[in-house]
Order: sequence, then structure tokens, then C-alpha cells
Amino acid sequence: MDVIKFSSRQQKIMELVKKGAPITSEQLADKIGVTRAALRPDLAILTMTGILDAKPKVGYIYSNKPSYSLLYDYIRNINAEDIMSKPVVVDENTTVYDAIVNLFLNDVGTLFVENNGILTGAVSRKDFLKIAIGGTDMKNVPVGIIMTRMPNIVFLERKDTAYTAAQKIMEHEVDCLPVIEKSMEDSKEILKIVGKVSKTNITRLFVKMGENN
Amino acid sequence: MDVIKFSSRQQKIMELVKKGAPITSEQLADKIGVTRAALRPDLAILTMTGILDAKPKVGYIYSNKPSYSLLYDYIRNINAEDIMSKPVVVDENTTVYDAIVNLFLNDVGTLFVENNGILTGAVSRKDFLKIAIGGTDMKNVPVGIIMTRMPNIVFLERKDTAYTAAQKIMEHEVDCLPVIEKSMEDSKEILKIVGKVSKTNITRLFVKMGENN
Repeated sequence: MDVIKFSSRQQKIMELVKKGAPITSEQLADKIGVTRAALRPDLAILTMTGILDAKPKVGYIYSNKPSYSLLYDYIRNINAEDIMSKPVVVDENTTVYDAIVNLFLNDVGTLFVENNGILTGAVSRKDFLKIAIGGTDMKNVPVGIIMTRMPNIVFLERKDTAYTAAQKIMEHEVDCLPVIEKSMEDSKEILKIVGKVSKTNITRLFVKMGENN
Repeated sequence: MDVIKFSSRQQKIMELVKKGAPITSEQLADKIGVTRAALRPDLAILTMTGILDAKPKVGYIYSNKPSYSLLYDYIRNINAEDIMSKPVVVDENTTVYDAIVNLFLNDVGTLFVENNGILTGAVSRKDFLKIAIGGTDMKNVPVGIIMTRMPNIVFLERKDTAYTAAQKIMEHEVDCLPVIEKSMEDSKEILKIVGKVSKTNITRLFVKMGENN
């Protein structure tokens, strides 16, 4: 997609609106010396791209904001599965010390915890730091004791949007959410972790959105 | 800004392109029963909003991607100072233990360190965790000993864009960057911290961009 190039008439309209807002389409047509109908496509483009704002019964004003609907659509058309990364998972019986080593080796901020392949909890760098300064015997206490346990973990499914992911991260004040798949086993619903979306994934997506191509 | 509503003719064009891409404007005009000139504004809007892609000498194809130029402009028109939050700052002589307490009390991921009001370093939750499991005497070692020291800290200035912030965060693999102001004192350049931009600020901005208004 190329950068939008506005025609000289569109630029003229932008100038006129900047100087004389609010200004009606009749007034614009007058000043430019064309019919209202001839201006319609230009005004549509300037309004849709968010350069101008059309106030009913008032006229056009200069807003120069991008079209939020486009941002909105873009952000809501990307799914968790498109931006997720591989989660680091440990067993509930792993000691806190080994779990921290694991955290450093994988350079992640959150570990997810499983029991027999089923997601049962999560532990963040913050949780570990709290334990580390609290004098707990880290080499003997299993991570299952200190983790945040299901059902207190907010999660995502593959088709949740990037927007939902970011919104849940902010609302629940966490760094990272697991992406899970639900299935039934012995008529009980179980959750398996298939990925994670963190503030890092959102920041990476943001950089991608801002790249000039 | 309202969500874009496409006219029935625009929707018809989208349908035709979806089915028969690549398709030229002549073919579209034929099928719709209007002149090429009459279609021009609709095609311009559909191309500018990224719904269609125009391939020279081939025709229109369906792309349904938002206009990257708009995303690009939007992200590059927001400055660090628009999204930064208040940094938590401690003195170099603060003990590691007190610094960690400070980290928890303020619920932040990174502390910035000053000496006589001048930014001299930064310590992250990860740095603290490393120290905490390493057996260091946290109540006696000052934070100035374990911090990452200037000039090894990447920073932002107020007018740097949100894009630059996110891009530097990803490139240097940090959670948070200080926003600084430069000034001269005794013909020496000094840096004062005036804010911080973290992955949390980027994620918050992302949520704001995705909000439907």
C-alpha cells in the first residue's frame, strides 16, 4: 500500500477548511469554482481518511486524525494465534529455584505450569521476586505452591483478537496471557496451552504496524 | 470518526473483485453498467482504505488490508511525552532491599537511579531477581552497584515518537525506557529523567487505538 497522495484540489480543500472552518460544501464549491457534486468524491476521501470531519448542518472542520475505523478494523482482524509465541512450561513439582533458572535460561517474564499436560497455573517474575526476598526455601518449595492457580488465570483462545489480548492484559494488570485450546476428556473440560501473548508481542505488533511498508 | 459505511455500489465492486480478480476498471464499469469515470471515486476510496489493491496493467485485486500509510502516520504522530508515565526514581545509595520494596510499593517493573538529580542508571525486576537468588547481601549492597549504568542505558526524548519508543524497546530487549531532558551544567551535558515509556504504555496505546470511537 502506497502512502496516500492527495490531489491538488484535495490539498486546496484542506487549506480552505484549515482557514475557514467550519465551512460547508457549498462554500467550498464556490471558492474553488466547481459544483458541489464535483467536490463530493474529494470530500468523501478527505472525510474517510480522517483529514476532515463532517459536522451535520455545520460544515467541514479540519481534524487531521487518521480514520479510527481503519485502526479499529486492523487491530481487530489480527488474532492471538497470529502474534503468539511459544510458552515456557514447567511441571507443578519443579522447585521454585529450578523454575527461576528456567525463566532466565529462556529469557521470559512468565512461566506456565502444567500437571499431566493440563494448564494449572502461572508464575511471573514479580511472583518469583516476592518469594526470593521473603526467605522461602526456594530449593525445596515446588512452583505449584506459589503459582497463581486456575481458575484465577485469564486466558485467550486462538481466535481472540490482538485487541482483546491487549485489553485483557491491561485490565487484569498482567504481563502475559496463555493462549489455550479447550477439549473434553472424560466429560470434563480441560485446557491445554498452545501459546502466549505478552506485552512484548503487542509491542512487536505495534512496531510492525509502524513500519513503512 | 465514524466507522466507514460503504455505499451499495462500493459493496458491489468489492463483490465483483472478490469473485473475478484481477479485474480492470473497464470490466467493472461494464458489469455495473456505468462509465469508468463514474467508478473512479469509488475505486479511489476502496483503494485508499486498503480494501482493494490496484496492480498497474493488471487490474484490481481484493486485499482487505487497512491503509498502512494511515497506521504509519498515526503511530508516528504520537510522541513519547504523550504516552509516558511518571518514573519511580531512587538514589544510588538506596540498598537493593529497599529498592525492591520500592518496586513493589509502586508496582513498577523498572526503577531509575539518580545521583544529585542526574540520571545515572536503571534496574529491572529481572536484575533484582538475579541478585535475589545469587545470595547477595541485599540489605547492605547499594543499588548503584548492581544497576545498569549510563551510558549503557537507551533513552528517549519527549519528541521521539511512540514508534521509536516501541522499536527501541524491542531492539534493546528492555521493558522500559527513560524519557530524558538534556541540559548543560558547567559546560557538561546532563540528563534529567522526566518520564518513562514501557511495554505497558505501548500496550495501553494499542488498546486506545482499538477502541471504537
